[in-house]
Amino acid sequence: MATRIQTIEDLCINTIRTLSIDAVQKANSGHPGLPMGAATMAYVLWTRYLRHNPRNPDWPDRDRFVLSAGHGSMLLYSLLFLTGYDLTLDDLKQFRQWKSKTPGHPERGVTPGVEVTTGPLGQGFGNSVGLAIAERWLAARFNRPGHTMFDHCTYVIASDGDMMEGVASEAASLAGHLGLGRLIVLYDANEVTLSATTNVTFSEDVGGRFAAYGWHVQRIDGHDAKAVDAALAAARAVEDRPSLIVARTHLGYGSPHRQDTYKAHGEPLGEEEVRLVKRAYGWPEDPPFYVPEEALKEFRGAVAQGEALEAAWKKRLDAYRAAHPDLADELTRVLAGELPAGWESRLPAFEAKDKPLATREASGATLNALAAVVPNLMGGSADLDPSTHTLLKGMGDFERPLDGAAGGAEGSAEAPKAQGAAGGAWGYGGRSDHFGVREHAMGAILTGMALHGGPVPFGGTFLTFSDYMRPSVRLAALSEAHVIYVWTHDSIGLGEDGPTHQPVEHLPALRAIPNLVLLRPADATETVEAWRIALQHRTGPVALVLSRQKLPILDRTVLAAAAGVARGAYVLTDGEAPSGGEPADPDVILIATGSEVSLALAAHEHLARQGVRSRVVSMPSWELFEAQPQGYRDSVLPPSVRARVSVEAASPLGWERYVGSDGAVIGVSRFGASAPGAVIMREFGFTPEHVAETARAVLGRVRSREERSRR
Amino acid sequence: MATRIQTIEDLCINTIRTLSIDAVQKANSGHPGLPMGAATMAYVLWTRYLRHNPRNPDWPDRDRFVLSAGHGSMLLYSLLFLTGYDLTLDDLKQFRQWKSKTPGHPERGVTPGVEVTTGPLGQGFGNSVGLAIAERWLAARFNRPGHTMFDHCTYVIASDGDMMEGVASEAASLAGHLGLGRLIVLYDANEVTLSATTNVTFSEDVGGRFAAYGWHVQRIDGHDAKAVDAALAAARAVEDRPSLIVARTHLGYGSPHRQDTYKAHGEPLGEEEVRLVKRAYGWPEDPPFYVPEEALKEFRGAVAQGEALEAAWKKRLDAYRAAHPDLADELTRVLAGELPAGWESRLPAFEAKDKPLATREASGATLNALAAVVPNLMGGSADLDPSTHTLLKGMGDFERPLDGAAGGAEGSAEAPKAQGAAGGAWGYGGRSDHFGVREHAMGAILTGMALHGGPVPFGGTFLTFSDYMRPSVRLAALSEAHVIYVWTHDSIGLGEDGPTHQPVEHLPALRAIPNLVLLRPADATETVEAWRIALQHRTGPVALVLSRQKLPILDRTVLAAAAGVARGAYVLTDGEAPSGGEPADPDVILIATGSEVSLALAAHEHLARQGVRSRVVSMPSWELFEAQPQGYRDSVLPPSVRARVSVEAASPLGWERYVGSDGAVIGVSRFGASAPGAVIMREFGFTPEHVAETARAVLGRVRSREERSRR
Repeated sequence: MATRIQTIEDLCINTIRTLSIDAVQKANSGHPGLPMGAATMAYVLWTRYLRHNPRNPDWPDRDRFVLSAGHGSMLLYSLLFLTGYDLTLDDLKQFRQWKSKTPGHPERGVTPGVEVTTGPLGQGFGNSVGLAIAERWLAARFNRPGHTMFDHCTYVIASDGDMMEGVASEAASLAGHLGLGRLIVLYDANEVTLSATTNVTFSEDVGGRFAAYGWHVQRIDGHDAKAVDAALAAARAVEDRPSLIVARTHLGYGSPHRQDTYKAHGEPLGEEEVRLVKRAYGWPEDPPFYVPEEALKEFRGAVAQGEALEAAWKKRLDAYRAAHPDLADELTRVLAGELPAGWESRLPAFEAKDKPLATREASGATLNALAAVVPNLMGGSADLDPSTHTLLKGMGDFERPLDGAAGGAEGSAEAPKAQGAAGGAWGYGGRSDHFGVREHAMGAILTGMALHGGPVPFGGTFLTFSDYMRPSVRLAALSEAHVIYVWTHDSIGLGEDGPTHQPVEHLPALRAIPNLVLLRPADATETVEAWRIALQHRTGPVALVLSRQKLPILDRTVLAAAAGVARGAYVLTDGEAPSGGEPADPDVILIATGSEVSLALAAHEHLARQGVRSRVVSMPSWELFEAQPQGYRDSVLPPSVRARVSVEAASPLGWERYVGSDGAVIGVSRFGASAPGAVIMREFGFTPEHVAETARAVLGRVRSREERSRR
Repeated sequence: MATRIQTIEDLCINTIRTLSIDAVQKANSGHPGLPMGAATMAYVLWTRYLRHNPRNPDWPDRDRFVLSAGHGSMLLYSLLFLTGYDLTLDDLKQFRQWKSKTPGHPERGVTPGVEVTTGPLGQGFGNSVGLAIAERWLAARFNRPGHTMFDHCTYVIASDGDMMEGVASEAASLAGHLGLGRLIVLYDANEVTLSATTNVTFSEDVGGRFAAYGWHVQRIDGHDAKAVDAALAAARAVEDRPSLIVARTHLGYGSPHRQDTYKAHGEPLGEEEVRLVKRAYGWPEDPPFYVPEEALKEFRGAVAQGEALEAAWKKRLDAYRAAHPDLADELTRVLAGELPAGWESRLPAFEAKDKPLATREASGATLNALAAVVPNLMGGSADLDPSTHTLLKGMGDFERPLDGAAGGAEGSAEAPKAQGAAGGAWGYGGRSDHFGVREHAMGAILTGMALHGGPVPFGGTFLTFSDYMRPSVRLAALSEAHVIYVWTHDSIGLGEDGPTHQPVEHLPALRAIPNLVLLRPADATETVEAWRIALQHRTGPVALVLSRQKLPILDRTVLAAAAGVARGAYVLTDGEAPSGGEPADPDVILIATGSEVSLALAAHEHLARQGVRSRVVSMPSWELFEAQPQGYRDSVLPPSVRARVSVEAASPLGWERYVGSDGAVIGVSRFGASAPGAVIMREFGFTPEHVAETARAVLGRVRSREERSRR
């Protein structure tokens, strides 16, 4: 072997590089350039700073590592294999293959040690702010003098592309505002993107920008291990501000023909160039996937170190349990994602005689009742609390502590309220998050909070602005993060703000996202049920879609109980059977969601007066309904009843699934308008008369067709 | 009347304020705070700087004004009324009412003088960069020594909320990079947002951030008219960088109980407070909507001035036409949005014997052929040109001119290529836009370019990242902007990059947006047709959804002509009629889009071998199909043929509309996976065998049901 004599440092760095190169080459697909350029930083971070336990990727107090530039996945997979995670060399050889543990971009839940799913640029950066928030909150909530249960950092490697994305800008601004000192971002400034060098598009002073956000900023040569080490040490020492390390690196470092070119970004180097690169590294050209013993040994030091770290933590946990048994119980429960006994006891109840209430208002009351008993329920809105009703009252703001001890490992001994302190003193113990007008960052942060473990996060904005956070919602669904979205002002019914603020297409657009459960409750009572489901559904995000306008509280003494919400759709009423006889199938089924359920009930009365028996089905959640057995679904929507009308103040797209070829969809096929909400609803045909008329027309068509076919 | 003696300046400023206050109060809905705080800036800008012609809001060389903080719409409506646009005091009194010209947020096309639709924060800021790009490009393209046809500015009023949004950050970074000296942003820094003062969420140094982007930054007191005037003059004088004027103002200025509180943001002040504010302004408390004669006269000076400005411009146009008749013709045509004669002549043609081609590749060839004859077709991608095939070859990059004369009014005399200049010398005359990894800004910028008039802009990214730009897509559709989106890598078929990059839900999510035409062509030939439609469809955005993977070129000698694309869906083949007899209805209809059309054709062959007659319908565009007469639609999908199968590698949501209650939808109901594309397609059931089998099962069900009903 023509191996040049290398320092152990070189050996380790080049092992990362060549594993990445070989895996991409074998897959004939992937991104070799980033691992080649960022290997030095990764080596220093992973062998000297990162406190983790490869034998237990779930150890709660581990440092979090986020490869925001997820296309460099082979960097992360190499590190995970080398430091001893449950990932083998064979897994690396299966890079980007069907059902492998090494998919094209890192996926949470697929590969042990991958904290968050990354690839779409900027998202990992946003997630990392959520991870850092979760850590500080857990520390504030649980640490006690002499008992430090949470004391870890969030490290990020981010790329030029990450830095260009708005979601990262938003998240960076908020992280600076909050003074999250344990967030450390290594910015791999290789000045090349997929299609060009950054001088074509990106000449800003990123360091200067982050300084303006309130970050601690350093500039280094990213290939100088000593400089990386010193910068990480300095960043760790800064406790009151997040740190950005602008590390100048070379994409595709060492590749004779491709270094610093965009071709190194997203294509295999090619067999010949791989040989040339290895030669440049002083590396054996064969075999591929060569891992020097010394390098492996160096990396695998992480195993013993990690086990010792976790063992020490467990010892601290024992001492904590002895000193603070209740808190320790809560800590265990919170980390396990379990709800406290009796958590449902304080859920509000509403009655038909109560005044009409917007479901956003009912949601605010329910949320606050839950927050009083579920200590890890936390969140806020993108600057819309008074409108979305997402403020947690009396639970304090999550904010930079007044005393400046932003990075202190020890939390407040007690909630400051008990000490009579001012609101500001809640510091990181507060549970109300103020995200600012930053919907996208909010989305990414919520996912980070959820995937950290500990918090059950929620975030609110207007439904129309769910578009701003959509890329993050998708990744929450993909990574099965338990996040609760509170999206209010859910239709043209919001009124005067007009079409820019009136959702039309958003319901089908969200229903199309796999693994997202969407609930649009019909009244205050269904809203309570929706929250009950949202807290218990832990395998993905849940969206609550709520009205701005007030809605009557349905009379459950005559209508079915709202417990039916859990099944996605349920029969609210069939009305009186004809002449008090045996209940038979209805003539027509009206299916409605949210604010249109009370409209359907009014249409049902109309129809009754006209001698038509209609069933009203409330269908708050397609996803939950579709998870029911066929028998239940057929009981709600009997196949024999083909006269069906859906009523929802949103795009009609998709409703044919439930109304069938013979039914009718009452929806909104254009953008909305600016006018008082009641006027708009009437002008767009959302009146009991129009619904009843449509139902009669459908029934007429179905009956004449049936008659024809009987002839 | 208790009117205090006021300067004409005070009179004018307070007229803006009180009109806004009164309109919001009368509507009992709206946002009074911003107009009260920003009136001074608006007054100075609109009476001393803005070059516009209220009698002709379409004068091409007018300055553009964007109220990015669209919630302050009454500021803009007041200015439009006062300066003499076709908007009356009665229109102001109809603020936020059904069918009024003064909707809740400014809407392009509804109110004369509204340049772009704003409200969703950050969007107007992004649009303004597009407006500024369009101006510089038109100047470079058409101005000639002694003939300055384009020489105007883009002015923006933006709020704290705008500055927090990522889309504005992205756009600002690009504007700084491009050195857009004629873009001037007045940042209304009132330090209050909807729910709180900004110190809760937003403590960054915005001015410092913009300086890092390369902007010229000033800081002033926004209530000091002299300071505003001086800052605008200084900003105008800076030609090589965009300008940010950080203007400290007070939200709800003058309101004794609400100034500087978030309550002033989005609620009417209330009758009593309105009186108190007017008293504070030294204004008559009655009547509402009081407009002093002197103030109106001062503002209406804009009419004569505007008419003179346009008259001078028209004179210049006459001289230009004499000196440069061909260019003048082109200018007229481009501004009218018309295509040159013979524009279709160079469209490529593909044949079945050509090699398989990804539709993204066919799109690249078509785009370049079109760009050669359509001089105002311009655009690029969010750093994905090599993948999206959106580079205009040999047309130059739109970039900051090398000579530093970024703001010069005179364009290059000839395209630099003709002069043998280096590519860099294209400056603002280049037609390839490099947006960087900034999908959202790209979306907003494209809309601004289109609404400026002149360019026909296109922008590309991967379909999955259409999510990042979705809020801008929505506003393009709402404001009927002629923008072309090129979204490639359109399904799980893209392969190894995995689920983060594989669109699933995006097709239904986009189809749900009103006024967006989406086309997913089946092969290279359909791609040419899709571009033909995209250039001609001028009443809203058009999305081209294209494959990464190669697709066979369909044999049009045996299949129907691709001209059918224009009707949204068309019968590609019915196959042979049984025993060569009269063509009858097929047994089963296979409906497919994009890459699944060739799959459906393969299934059709399978079925034929099994004695089943299937029709294959290519349905590239739902929107175009639904615009066809019922007769045509029934001819493609005969109501009598109820055995139907749709095949599309995307969420099944919505396909029930076409396959009906008896049909089957072959789609993707989960997230994708990382593996070679062909493997994924097979594993997800996209094989001829599975499609044929599904078709036979559906046919069996339909036949047995029909038999039962015949009995």
